[in-house]
Amino acid sequence: MCRVMAYLGTPVLLDDLLFRPDNSLVRQTYAPQMLHKLNLAGFGMAAWDPASHRAGEPFVYKVTELPIFDGNLKNLAEKLRASCVLAHVRGVPYTDRSHVERANIHPFRFPGYRLCLAHNGDLADFGRMKFELLRHIEPGIARQIAGTTDSEWIYALLMSQVNDPTGDLALKEILPAVERTLAILRAVRRKLGIAVSSSANLFLCDGNDLVATRFTFDFGCYGNEVREANLSYLSLWFTIGRNYSFRDGEWKMEGGGKHADSVIVASEPLTQDTSTWIEVPEYSLLYVTTQRGRRHVETVPLEV
Amino acid sequence: MCRVMAYLGTPVLLDDLLFRPDNSLVRQTYAPQMLHKLNLAGFGMAAWDPASHRAGEPFVYKVTELPIFDGNLKNLAEKLRASCVLAHVRGVPYTDRSHVERANIHPFRFPGYRLCLAHNGDLADFGRMKFELLRHIEPGIARQIAGTTDSEWIYALLMSQVNDPTGDLALKEILPAVERTLAILRAVRRKLGIAVSSSANLFLCDGNDLVATRFTFDFGCYGNEVREANLSYLSLWFTIGRNYSFRDGEWKMEGGGKHADSVIVASEPLTQDTSTWIEVPEYSLLYVTTQRGRRHVETVPLEV
Amino acid sequence: MCRVMAYLGTPVLLDDLLFRPDNSLVRQTYAPQMLHKLNLAGFGMAAWDPASHRAGEPFVYKVTELPIFDGNLKNLAEKLRASCVLAHVRGVPYTDRSHVERANIHPFRFPGYRLCLAHNGDLADFGRMKFELLRHIEPGIARQIAGTTDSEWIYALLMSQVNDPTGDLALKEILPAVERTLAILRAVRRKLGIAVSSSANLFLCDGNDLVATRFTFDFGCYGNEVREANLSYLSLWFTIGRNYSFRDGEWKMEGGGKHADSVIVASEPLTQDTSTWIEVPEYSLLYVTTQRGRRHVETVPLEV
Amino acid sequence: MCRVMAYLGTPVLLDDLLFRPDNSLVRQTYAPQMLHKLNLAGFGMAAWDPASHRAGEPFVYKVTELPIFDGNLKNLAEKLRASCVLAHVRGVPYTDRSHVERANIHPFRFPGYRLCLAHNGDLADFGRMKFELLRHIEPGIARQIAGTTDSEWIYALLMSQVNDPTGDLALKEILPAVERTLAILRAVRRKLGIAVSSSANLFLCDGNDLVATRFTFDFGCYGNEVREANLSYLSLWFTIGRNYSFRDGEWKMEGGGKHADSVIVASEPLTQDTSTWIEVPEYSLLYVTTQRGRRHVETVPLEV
Repeated sequence: MCRVMAYLGTPVLLDDLLFRPDNSLVRQTYAPQMLHKLNLAGFGMAAWDPASHRAGEPFVYKVTELPIFDGNLKNLAEKLRASCVLAHVRGVPYTDRSHVERANIHPFRFPGYRLCLAHNGDLADFGRMKFELLRHIEPGIARQIAGTTDSEWIYALLMSQVNDPTGDLALKEILPAVERTLAILRAVRRKLGIAVSSSANLFLCDGNDLVATRFTFDFGCYGNEVREANLSYLSLWFTIGRNYSFRDGEWKMEGGGKHADSVIVASEPLTQDTSTWIEVPEYSLLYVTTQRGRRHVETVPLEV
Repeated sequence: MCRVMAYLGTPVLLDDLLFRPDNSLVRQTYAPQMLHKLNLAGFGMAAWDPASHRAGEPFVYKVTELPIFDGNLKNLAEKLRASCVLAHVRGVPYTDRSHVERANIHPFRFPGYRLCLAHNGDLADFGRMKFELLRHIEPGIARQIAGTTDSEWIYALLMSQVNDPTGDLALKEILPAVERTLAILRAVRRKLGIAVSSSANLFLCDGNDLVATRFTFDFGCYGNEVREANLSYLSLWFTIGRNYSFRDGEWKMEGGGKHADSVIVASEPLTQDTSTWIEVPEYSLLYVTTQRGRRHVETVPLEV
Repeated sequence: MCRVMAYLGTPVLLDDLLFRPDNSLVRQTYAPQMLHKLNLAGFGMAAWDPASHRAGEPFVYKVTELPIFDGNLKNLAEKLRASCVLAHVRGVPYTDRSHVERANIHPFRFPGYRLCLAHNGDLADFGRMKFELLRHIEPGIARQIAGTTDSEWIYALLMSQVNDPTGDLALKEILPAVERTLAILRAVRRKLGIAVSSSANLFLCDGNDLVATRFTFDFGCYGNEVREANLSYLSLWFTIGRNYSFRDGEWKMEGGGKHADSVIVASEPLTQDTSTWIEVPEYSLLYVTTQRGRRHVETVPLEV
Repeated sequence: MCRVMAYLGTPVLLDDLLFRPDNSLVRQTYAPQMLHKLNLAGFGMAAWDPASHRAGEPFVYKVTELPIFDGNLKNLAEKLRASCVLAHVRGVPYTDRSHVERANIHPFRFPGYRLCLAHNGDLADFGRMKFELLRHIEPGIARQIAGTTDSEWIYALLMSQVNDPTGDLALKEILPAVERTLAILRAVRRKLGIAVSSSANLFLCDGNDLVATRFTFDFGCYGNEVREANLSYLSLWFTIGRNYSFRDGEWKMEGGGKHADSVIVASEPLTQDTSTWIEVPEYSLLYVTTQRGRRHVETVPLEV
């Protein structure tokens, strides 16, 4: 049911995040450590390289094929040094009805918008919720929905909670929009009598900001169909420090929160050695702040 | 803006419809005769082979790749002898925003339904119409919409006009459902003030029946963006007879309506020699009836 | 490093071989039971349906995408009842240099030929062997090689050992050709000093015959790079009987060699319950004979 | 039979070469001006962006899908400013035997090599020539051939004519290697009695150099199968100047050879207005020299 990785910090070669660590995001497609189901339904990323032309616009790359065999992606990963990355590998039920399509690849980002969203989880009985959400989504935003995922609808709902979805949104706008989005989902679920465990680990990036949630509606309540994504609380971890690189046989940051300039947030650590990683608490909202060039990770309870 | 071909008759090798004629449907992807824009955005078909297992269920094949290079399709075409075929090649604007996805490949057919729909044309300003149509579509049907085409919404709308969309529908149910569908589209357009030329050449097959429309809303009214599909009345032709085969240097039927057992309806004739083909009148509804093993083509004016 | 399944017998729905058993071939792509590496690099099959047009010609279907998400394949599997099937899922090293291409999808079958080959295993240092094999391959056959696999070269080598590669080959021609093929490979390896464990589990079908080998060159000799495919003797199993179907909670044949009319040979049993399956001995050649409508499995030692 | 474009000069946005001109390379896939056959079998490029990480290594991107619908390519084109580009769109016969595979996408470049090659044309009866060329190709280079094109074999042959194929080759090494390559092809053709018109418009780039040929073996001699690529002398054009941009309703350079810093060489001009473009003479070798920051185009007769 998907794996996600977000990075914000000093420029790092994409290869060092996506391919090279022993539990890199690309490896998590076929060998995740904290999930039984594989994530074989596509790869997507937005990556901001400050040395590139129009540095405020990300490189965006989405494919339904497996990233481990993808020469185009491997080449990009060896060429781009990104200061912000949001990357996602998609897991879906093992059936031909799963709509493995480019339109369903995360992260979502409508034309002209800056904020991107990726999602780890799934909303139970979403077919019934979908059109009910229309009254909470700006018509001009709703029309841009192109795929079948609950995730893209969550994105449309979220972008309807801010004044100008094409603007460069500050944390003080993003954070309440995330909370309102979850509150609307909760209200619609209640209205429709949906009370089944549903995960909404959301990841948001725009090149400057990184926000994530570790959240599950009605955790522990199962319907007839128990999915792995609902059975346990989906994992979320982060690491903070500087000079992310391969040292002493391990990909890691130099620790020490005081001098940290870089953060990775991911569904699971990028290395099997998790000693430099911290688990994000359940029911919480995480965001990264920057003060005098130092980065901090804040986590607050999500009271939705 | 798409080309479509439908066949109903004695079993014919798919190869003889899709690949071998000099203006076959597959050739119409890169060299259509009655359209300037190419149809490079995918191929789809439903084909009923009476010798196959569960003959009432069609072979369904959909790809976004070009059919002319597709060895899987060519093999199928050389193996299947179909008594009913509905095949479509998709044309879209030349831009990366065109959503070339499998979910957008015609013909549309929801799980468990028998009737399939393919569409040649496009509804102007469909983004605005889309959610407005929801009140005319059964919720359980609306939820199955997976792509971004107006065509799939038309299919959902049409299937909401019959009592049991999973049933084996008779012509007497299909024909009024088509008319109601067009009437609803007309009403929604009027409500939203959309008065721009919009083509709705629809093709319906279920293995036993073949229905098609040659129809344009507000023909001759252009908005700011003039598309080829709207500029002229989209073509529709048919041929009727028996023993479709290659004779005297040409793919054709033996004519003579009295003994006809087979009909091809297509956006344009499958041969450059159009002498055995008849143009369907504008604003009309075409359907095929069967009496004592003979097939007849009926065309009636569409008064929507 | 690939999984293969071959079937010869009374017509059986492809779905019942490819998708429905708990360890079906399609499931073996992402969850094989007797292999650690996954088989994510494509699916291919040749399937002979006696009810189809030109029944001697197989349905051939090859894709590089994952079969579990493939609606076209699932539809075919629900429509075809095959009396002979050769199907393969491809495993390759996890790198973008693995040439995941349609030209590399098994089974191999050159235009106009009847015999198809699929391969489970890989020949060490094949880059050096490749052009050395040219002197043992008919030039007209060598020119048809389109991909990068050792398997396709083995096919070309094998087809050069028979009088008429386009003919309907009898077992008495196929079996010595297989032995000569392995002997040539052994000689070329010796000449080049290649003495590293290399598996050659070959599967051959032409609609009427089924031949397989369970064979490894220099088993137990490892070079610098130890691959899973070389570390253990690659598995090969078969089951024989009649009325293959789901009974008592399990996909299986009614046993009893005396009345058997159908055989499945596969890299690993199609069910987790292996009680009706028999392991093929190492270093052996297996083939199916038919006498008075009864099928027998013969296995003889491969003395190459 | 393919279209190619090469650029060497001051950094230019890829979008301004690949997509925006009225006869851009991407448009030449479905609407070339100087070729009847379309180029629908894939797109590939190598592009050197001096602002990127490891600027000496190109961005490499290859797909078999149509570039006009490719959001990944469009995004790359809007992000990269390249000082050198070699891009190619592939045309193949309209049949499923055409091997539309990633391994056949130009430009070719083996791992660790710097020089890339793209080809417009095709060598008649190449199946017979292929293995005959092996004696002229270094074994270690021959082993890297992965596809079915004559073009990749020409690349392997060419790279066997230089001392160190992984080195940064100077013009004085590249130019004689091109001539030797053509001479070997000529000799092998003569040996095999192949005297049919065969085009070899070659394009070579390594980030610093640009070399091209406009050349046809046995022009005017046709065999049984006349292909468009052989019927006329394949076109090749160039333009030189500075400040390539959209001015006065046209994409063009400011002319004046004295101050030129940039060159485009292409199968056909990128604009329908060809007034600032010059046709390369038949039977000639073109290369770009740089002196005191000024670029010059030299063309010399190819006497092979």
